[in-house]
Amino acid sequence: MDKTTKWTIVGGGNGGQSLAGHLSIMGFPVKLYDIFEDTINAITEQGGIHVEGAVQGFGPLELATTDIAQAVQGADIVMVVAPATAHRAIAKTCAPVLADGQIVILHPGATCGSLEFKQVLTAQGCSAKVTLAETNTLIYACRSPKPGYANIIGIKDDLVVASLPAKDTARVANLFKEAFPQVIAGKNVLQPSLGNANAIVHPAPSLLNTSLIESEHQWSYYYDGITPSIGAFVEKLDSERMALADAFEVDLLPILKWYKIAYGVDRPTLSETVRANPAYDGIAGQKELKTRYIMEDIPTGLVPMIELGKLCGIPTPRMEVIARLGEYLVEEDFFATGRTLKNLGLEDMSRTELMIFVETGDR
Amino acid sequence: MDKTTKWTIVGGGNGGQSLAGHLSIMGFPVKLYDIFEDTINAITEQGGIHVEGAVQGFGPLELATTDIAQAVQGADIVMVVAPATAHRAIAKTCAPVLADGQIVILHPGATCGSLEFKQVLTAQGCSAKVTLAETNTLIYACRSPKPGYANIIGIKDDLVVASLPAKDTARVANLFKEAFPQVIAGKNVLQPSLGNANAIVHPAPSLLNTSLIESEHQWSYYYDGITPSIGAFVEKLDSERMALADAFEVDLLPILKWYKIAYGVDRPTLSETVRANPAYDGIAGQKELKTRYIMEDIPTGLVPMIELGKLCGIPTPRMEVIARLGEYLVEEDFFATGRTLKNLGLEDMSRTELMIFVETGDR
Repeated sequence: MDKTTKWTIVGGGNGGQSLAGHLSIMGFPVKLYDIFEDTINAITEQGGIHVEGAVQGFGPLELATTDIAQAVQGADIVMVVAPATAHRAIAKTCAPVLADGQIVILHPGATCGSLEFKQVLTAQGCSAKVTLAETNTLIYACRSPKPGYANIIGIKDDLVVASLPAKDTARVANLFKEAFPQVIAGKNVLQPSLGNANAIVHPAPSLLNTSLIESEHQWSYYYDGITPSIGAFVEKLDSERMALADAFEVDLLPILKWYKIAYGVDRPTLSETVRANPAYDGIAGQKELKTRYIMEDIPTGLVPMIELGKLCGIPTPRMEVIARLGEYLVEEDFFATGRTLKNLGLEDMSRTELMIFVETGDR
Repeated sequence: MDKTTKWTIVGGGNGGQSLAGHLSIMGFPVKLYDIFEDTINAITEQGGIHVEGAVQGFGPLELATTDIAQAVQGADIVMVVAPATAHRAIAKTCAPVLADGQIVILHPGATCGSLEFKQVLTAQGCSAKVTLAETNTLIYACRSPKPGYANIIGIKDDLVVASLPAKDTARVANLFKEAFPQVIAGKNVLQPSLGNANAIVHPAPSLLNTSLIESEHQWSYYYDGITPSIGAFVEKLDSERMALADAFEVDLLPILKWYKIAYGVDRPTLSETVRANPAYDGIAGQKELKTRYIMEDIPTGLVPMIELGKLCGIPTPRMEVIARLGEYLVEEDFFATGRTLKNLGLEDMSRTELMIFVETGDR
């Protein structure tokens, strides 16, 4: 297969550098964009990214730049690999430079990433015929020890991608599969959006571990953090997500079943399951409250799920309690800044109208 | 002063035995009621209660019994010293045996204890002209190592009592002062009810320490449990209580100021204050989630405060978040079982009507 698909990675963090390096090692032409001069200069100096771990080699880049126009020009796929809280700003940055036919994949999109991105492009007057898409998670477990170096610890066996509108998903998935055959086409963007399990496994356990976070104890996020009561709560929180998935007619696995399939751990409760999962050994609990587990996963995970619940009449009381508790503990107004229906420009839509919108792109 | 006032203590736990022994040592005639045969038998066998600590001696009792009629007969003051979640059942037990002129003091009443007690007496058809009253806290720090023995660790310098109706408070306070001169007459029962600081300092820190509670770590409730973020949250939770006090026109100190006065500890934040308070040394954190800090202080503390907020239009979002989180973590329906306006028979009252009711007893 010709490796002619041109990739631009937006975001030079752990995931962005891993993807840029890996795609280049595969033989694709790759550009990388980041806002940080230091990151870009380090990569430019060595001409690419050193990758180690599950993938090994040096991936030369066509360009590493802080200039979005140069980065995006000529790309077939613009892959945004950044905290979801940055998507709005990235959409604004990209709006003037995107061209007809380009694909923008939010990798991952958290919840309602494509819907937000589309709304910003429209508001910015972007007239390019762009296909938006999002994944349900990041394909790697990875880290970048320093600019220009990526350590790919593991590569996931599956990754769901879906386009906005859904009729473009097959085209996006086929291009994406050139690099990652494990990509699966989702029904529509609500599938990866509601598949955002971070919203379930991050904020609630983090908040309920507040005292451990602020203690002198080192702790293991999953082994110590998902105690029996916390695990039972998280399972019920997840059942609210499942109810949303049912209401929007997308297939998703409850987190407990997903653990069984993904990790082969079959225990009756979430607490026992994560504690029996050797893959979670050594995952340290955070030592400050204001991490992405709260600052990102509430406004771009729980908030849009709660709002989708309002739209379709599904109660999400546990999600609301956690989102509000998070607001109070870190003193942020996530319902002002986050992905509410109002902020997504969807406040007047019915459930049916939204389901038509994600399929066709028309409203 | 003649020690002729006849006391009956309802409840043979830590506080009840301490009070019964102490009052007897002071020279008052005292009876004690409890539902547990073993407790009553042990006390009957030795004829009274051995008290040590801040008070020392043997307090002989006129009677220790599981028969409520015998216990209450002839009493001037029936002092209920029991978990607030038992008040409803105790009211039902007492309703047929109370006589004109008797005083029932809920010590403490938690929040809306007298209002609940009165409603149960009325519902049970109790026609005796009884004066109800409640205190804001228990006058002791104490424990009972075994039936018949009480250890009074400390005696508080002040205790607020108020009657329902408030016009009877002076009479109640004067009798109460015969034993405890530090008793202060409150404006009306809303003062001790909203003075229930347990609702502020127990459920929220307990829930936010869930992982420590279910860990193998021993922890100190105040020193480890009130971390900076948890302390800041509790201060804001307390400001909701202060807003309720303002709305019902009762004087209360914010918890931070109260700590300064009660313990002489003057630090800018609650977290620093409790950590600098030597009186909190050695107060261990609980090792199970279902303790009175949640099972009692939510349904008889936060729930009625939230409901009083609804009645007077004061928002209590942090109280609601904690009450709901507690419900979900221990899987109880505290808004079904707790002191809601509906369960208190107050659902049709306005703020003004309630304020008249607590003053006059008329509605």
